[in-house]
Amino acid sequence: MRRRRLMDRLGHGVAVIFGNNNSPINYPSNAYHFRQDSTMMYYTGLDRDGLALVLDCDNRREILFGDDIDLDDIVWMGFTPSVAVLAESTGIEYSEPMADIARYLNPGIANGTTRILPPYRYDNILMLVEATGLTSKQIREKASVEFIKAVVDQRAVKTADEIAQIEKACEIGHEMHITAMRMCRPGVTEREIAGAIEGISLSKGGGFSFLPIVSTHGEIQHGFPKSEPMEAGRLLLVDAGAETLSCYCSDNTRVTPVNGRFDTRQREIYSIVLAAHDRVAEIARPGLKWRDAHFEAARVITEGMKDLGIFHGDTEEILSAGAHAIVFVHGLGHMMGMDVHDMEGLGQVYVGFDDEVRPQLDQFGTNFLRCGRRLQPGFVMTDEPGIYFIPHLIDAWRADGKFTEFINYDKLETYKDFGGIRLEDDLLVTDSGCRYLGPHIPITIDEVEAVAGTM
Amino acid sequence: MRRRRLMDRLGHGVAVIFGNNNSPINYPSNAYHFRQDSTMMYYTGLDRDGLALVLDCDNRREILFGDDIDLDDIVWMGFTPSVAVLAESTGIEYSEPMADIARYLNPGIANGTTRILPPYRYDNILMLVEATGLTSKQIREKASVEFIKAVVDQRAVKTADEIAQIEKACEIGHEMHITAMRMCRPGVTEREIAGAIEGISLSKGGGFSFLPIVSTHGEIQHGFPKSEPMEAGRLLLVDAGAETLSCYCSDNTRVTPVNGRFDTRQREIYSIVLAAHDRVAEIARPGLKWRDAHFEAARVITEGMKDLGIFHGDTEEILSAGAHAIVFVHGLGHMMGMDVHDMEGLGQVYVGFDDEVRPQLDQFGTNFLRCGRRLQPGFVMTDEPGIYFIPHLIDAWRADGKFTEFINYDKLETYKDFGGIRLEDDLLVTDSGCRYLGPHIPITIDEVEAVAGTM
Repeated sequence: MRRRRLMDRLGHGVAVIFGNNNSPINYPSNAYHFRQDSTMMYYTGLDRDGLALVLDCDNRREILFGDDIDLDDIVWMGFTPSVAVLAESTGIEYSEPMADIARYLNPGIANGTTRILPPYRYDNILMLVEATGLTSKQIREKASVEFIKAVVDQRAVKTADEIAQIEKACEIGHEMHITAMRMCRPGVTEREIAGAIEGISLSKGGGFSFLPIVSTHGEIQHGFPKSEPMEAGRLLLVDAGAETLSCYCSDNTRVTPVNGRFDTRQREIYSIVLAAHDRVAEIARPGLKWRDAHFEAARVITEGMKDLGIFHGDTEEILSAGAHAIVFVHGLGHMMGMDVHDMEGLGQVYVGFDDEVRPQLDQFGTNFLRCGRRLQPGFVMTDEPGIYFIPHLIDAWRADGKFTEFINYDKLETYKDFGGIRLEDDLLVTDSGCRYLGPHIPITIDEVEAVAGTM
Repeated sequence: MRRRRLMDRLGHGVAVIFGNNNSPINYPSNAYHFRQDSTMMYYTGLDRDGLALVLDCDNRREILFGDDIDLDDIVWMGFTPSVAVLAESTGIEYSEPMADIARYLNPGIANGTTRILPPYRYDNILMLVEATGLTSKQIREKASVEFIKAVVDQRAVKTADEIAQIEKACEIGHEMHITAMRMCRPGVTEREIAGAIEGISLSKGGGFSFLPIVSTHGEIQHGFPKSEPMEAGRLLLVDAGAETLSCYCSDNTRVTPVNGRFDTRQREIYSIVLAAHDRVAEIARPGLKWRDAHFEAARVITEGMKDLGIFHGDTEEILSAGAHAIVFVHGLGHMMGMDVHDMEGLGQVYVGFDDEVRPQLDQFGTNFLRCGRRLQPGFVMTDEPGIYFIPHLIDAWRADGKFTEFINYDKLETYKDFGGIRLEDDLLVTDSGCRYLGPHIPITIDEVEAVAGTM
């Protein structure tokens, strides 16, 4: 049905979706956890390596390419259904050995009769380079915008079944976050917490939706866990999510005081971020431009910074100049689905933007906004404002004399030891507004303090 | 010191070691856990992506190639020392931006003045293809046998520091196995156990040394965990190991009855595998050909199969014909170090074999023996015999009439529902014999039954 809609939209020519293969760690046969390509999963549901799907729109024919296993493979990997049986299981009439896909790749990719999506796995890129004689740069440029847009339009709007899967991922994510908050106390290491919550994601589902960020340096956007004992007085930021076995994701962020109690300064900053987070959920509804939601969150943060004497001047001038990005360095949030940054591999310009709302790449902070366009019912968005005090960034902007009319650098410098706070939940856009997905994870100061360190 | 020894051995020309990069999961910026290339780690200790090491033997010059990060990277990933500082930290005098490595790659790789190791990460292969104009097949063929052998000779013999690291990995592995055994009971899923022990490997070290095998179908050599509740009467095989943060590995296998007690048939098969496992530790010493250890284990297994009436005939004839491989389908074990199959990416023919002992690829079972050559003090080997009842293999051999003079197929067929048993520990070859590495993991029937299901 999904495939039929895609072929209807594409109309003519051949479209190819490449599945993923096993990805080597430190030698060819030692592989990471297999993860199917999300688009392949979306259109086939087949969670096996070594597959490609050809949609021959001219002849309305679907063909699954892949190789059957032999007795040696059965000894090593167990019995696996044949490619023909796999194809049949998902309603695909034809199947062929992988080598035979060559006839669709050359010269089809070069002359545009065969459409592909942007490849991101290097084995697939190398295969395409060697099959077509094009360079990897040319291969990437051959990705079909029509094909991308058709896939994006289908995958962006989540069905009830898909929402149920995301809720399931959120349940696992809930357990991960509760566990992290309960484990959080002085002496425990970030690595211990990260390992524990990754273990939960693997025990209950398909593993993490992205490498968990578990860091007492929340100001680092992708801080990875360290092995040193955590110290009282710091805030632990945990940004983590799970995947279901069918590849649907969750993504939440919570911040917990290592010693179980927020101090005054932490309460002040935390309250501003929480207000921004809550404000977005109040206004998100079909038709709202997500870029406007981003700036609404930025407005709440800017007002808060002014109350603390860190910013001064006119709020709207601060926002249009982009001075707020000294503390709110990234975009409000992104689509979420079978990829945690949904469809990011297809190109954010096609996923998060359109003719009406184009990416704003010239303003630091806003250039990291991954979605700007109007919301539609069935979109799932992450609502994740944050306030970060990044010593290197403060030093660089101050040295450049940037926005001295808006930023009180002397005051800001006193926060250099603070770290950073982000609060994140997943919003489903409904017909009339929006709702959070998944079970409630403690988020008010009282809720967080009640659970912190209780394990 | 390691680098100097390598340059002394190579004598002339340029040798390049490529580090690993981040490996994408489902879109370019969503990466798996970073794992440095073991050889890069061995010669530099640098655990960062985006590095390459050039050893210019002619000029006795070492150069670290890599790119420094900018302010955006600091915001996203935190502050990282410059490549020059990294180089200095490991005693490398020179550093250069990555782009400048091109002068060593072309035409050096094509004409053999630049020696490389076999690349296994597709991003590195693609980079080499595009830098040299060679095909990926030609690139692989350009790997230098001299360079491979020099690296193998250094890495194969473990120093006291390396042994200490492996013992540390074994300690984490011990906790993983004890946890799996304690969790093992009817109703628990393989996936729950796999997630829990992966979590331990991530909490305490650098994660798993390979994807854990957690399966009540032990006859599948790389059976991956399933989500169905385990049933009483089955045996759970767990083959798993940890890595330290400096990339040293452990690798053990244990088998636990799901309901906590081995039945008679299970005790019989288990005892044979344990006897084979123990026998290898009795005979392993410097000078012993590992292939002879493999056949000694096969001899114990064959005698046991004869006692059970599954095999009949002369033991030595069975072994030389390879009939034992119907149940002992793989090799006895492999080298272990910074790779769990140590240096497998450099080519097993160079790692496990030499002019005296060559791989025996024509005999099923023995063709999966990853090492055959004489042991030396400082080698670390896995001792991992097994007995497997693989329905597809039994059917195929019976249909072919294979070894009917040795195999009682009627009797063998009664074991088709059995599964498989493997027992594995890591042996250090000492000056006079060998010793197990790491804390003792319950292995006798009494020990296993005492711990099974106690969590």
